[in-house]
Amino acid sequence: MSKPLFNKLALIGIGLIGSSIARVARQEGLAGTISAATRRKETADEARALGIVDEIGTDNAAAVRDADFVILCTPVGANAEAMAQIAPHLKQGAIVSDVGSVKQAVIRDVGPLSPQGVHFVPAHPVAGTEHSGPSAGFPELFKGRWCIVTPIPGSDRAAVDKVIEFWRRCGSDMEEMAADHHDKILAITSHLPHLIAYTIVGTATDLEDDIKSEVIKFAAGGFRDFTRIAASDPTMWRDVFLNNKEAVLEMLGRLSEDLAALQRNIRWGEGDKLYELFERTRAIRRELIDAKQA
Amino acid sequence: MSKPLFNKLALIGIGLIGSSIARVARQEGLAGTISAATRRKETADEARALGIVDEIGTDNAAAVRDADFVILCTPVGANAEAMAQIAPHLKQGAIVSDVGSVKQAVIRDVGPLSPQGVHFVPAHPVAGTEHSGPSAGFPELFKGRWCIVTPIPGSDRAAVDKVIEFWRRCGSDMEEMAADHHDKILAITSHLPHLIAYTIVGTATDLEDDIKSEVIKFAAGGFRDFTRIAASDPTMWRDVFLNNKEAVLEMLGRLSEDLAALQRNIRWGEGDKLYELFERTRAIRRELIDAKQA
Repeated sequence: MSKPLFNKLALIGIGLIGSSIARVARQEGLAGTISAATRRKETADEARALGIVDEIGTDNAAAVRDADFVILCTPVGANAEAMAQIAPHLKQGAIVSDVGSVKQAVIRDVGPLSPQGVHFVPAHPVAGTEHSGPSAGFPELFKGRWCIVTPIPGSDRAAVDKVIEFWRRCGSDMEEMAADHHDKILAITSHLPHLIAYTIVGTATDLEDDIKSEVIKFAAGGFRDFTRIAASDPTMWRDVFLNNKEAVLEMLGRLSEDLAALQRNIRWGEGDKLYELFERTRAIRRELIDAKQA
Repeated sequence: MSKPLFNKLALIGIGLIGSSIARVARQEGLAGTISAATRRKETADEARALGIVDEIGTDNAAAVRDADFVILCTPVGANAEAMAQIAPHLKQGAIVSDVGSVKQAVIRDVGPLSPQGVHFVPAHPVAGTEHSGPSAGFPELFKGRWCIVTPIPGSDRAAVDKVIEFWRRCGSDMEEMAADHHDKILAITSHLPHLIAYTIVGTATDLEDDIKSEVIKFAAGGFRDFTRIAASDPTMWRDVFLNNKEAVLEMLGRLSEDLAALQRNIRWGEGDKLYELFERTRAIRRELIDAKQA
């Protein structure tokens, strides 16, 4: 194993993502010491019992003391408060990053709170499961998955490269892009699919009780895939939708129009139009297979 | 292996479902002889090369001669034409079934074409993949999956029981219900999820080219699951939507209302309402896990 990239890594938040980072960082020897802080004492106790970090408590300021790399692993909506708490305690030259699924809002809310002499490098590991909490994490979560870094104009290049190196050693494929571009791409590839899954499962829960129990029973016909997506962390996803509002509403607008057109095709028995769409969407799957993303 | 259930099984259509039935029927010794017919010569050649049936050609009438069990494995919209072709050639006492994802329309269109002395028993094996054609089939496709039988009022009980026994030996869990109830349940558990997946993938294909290529690249964030569903057979699904119009439009109407409400929640920053929905949908996943359907 090579020399640790960082002397001390501090994780603010130790849920699915934070605890997976802790596990892979230790496994790959990426940090000399790993400390963590979390809001709830119960979560800290759970993480301590798992033995995945060297120090853990509920005090964010204590966790970042002497750390040269800090990762905010909190829901997007909680990042600014976390940064405000740790800012006065950050070491000069420290790098602060995050894992948020939205980047413009994080840059807008967290960036200005970053002290002089500290490098803020926003990042987004595109990885997750429908499970939450410290016990849900595992070291392979980021393996072969994209991690997108969205540096702020004028960022220190060495700091950006070090964040990229960290994630590469966690197993991620790295990509660098502008924050607004990231938010648009993720709105369609991730945020909209989650929103739709939440909606359709919600629609089903509102059905009359006798039908509802059979929806559970016969879920294997397609509905089941949606329930998995719709079991994702509620706080995280609430924050995503509120913080990527513009791009999500834009994509949702397009989807609603397309859905209305399809509804009309069905009502008027326009089979040719349905067939044409279904052929077109099938081709996308082939492109995905060719791009080795399937 | 026990005595074959049927002397001769005839399959009209030899795609994913038909060829999977052929494979499992032979493996489990459910029929003395298995014949099949398909519309296209190329498909017949493919199935013949696979060696999964005893006789195959493009003549539906020839395939059903002397058969005591016939299964229509064609898209829902093609069942009536197939039944019209085979009707004069069916043996007295033969059982005819189907595999359609819609049952009221099949009963309406196919039922009246069934000759006197022939038993028509509609069924729906709730199983499939996104692949099509004879080569896509495999004998375990129905194992542990539901097969729903929707007998017509006044059906011959012995014939219904024999169809149930056939599917049970294919590995299916059996359920019997009224056709209209089936169509309502499947509209929400299967047809609506497919419709949504087709729509969202279609919305993505309409995006500007630069974004589209990145949608493929970063598909792993949730979109990928939808592309798999949206790669399902276009003809089959066109027929499903056209033939279960009423139930699909009803469910689509509910979904559109819910989507509009959610859109409003996002626009006005109503985080509490989003959180409440996401908590509720998460509970459905738990119910699914408890019901061992996850």
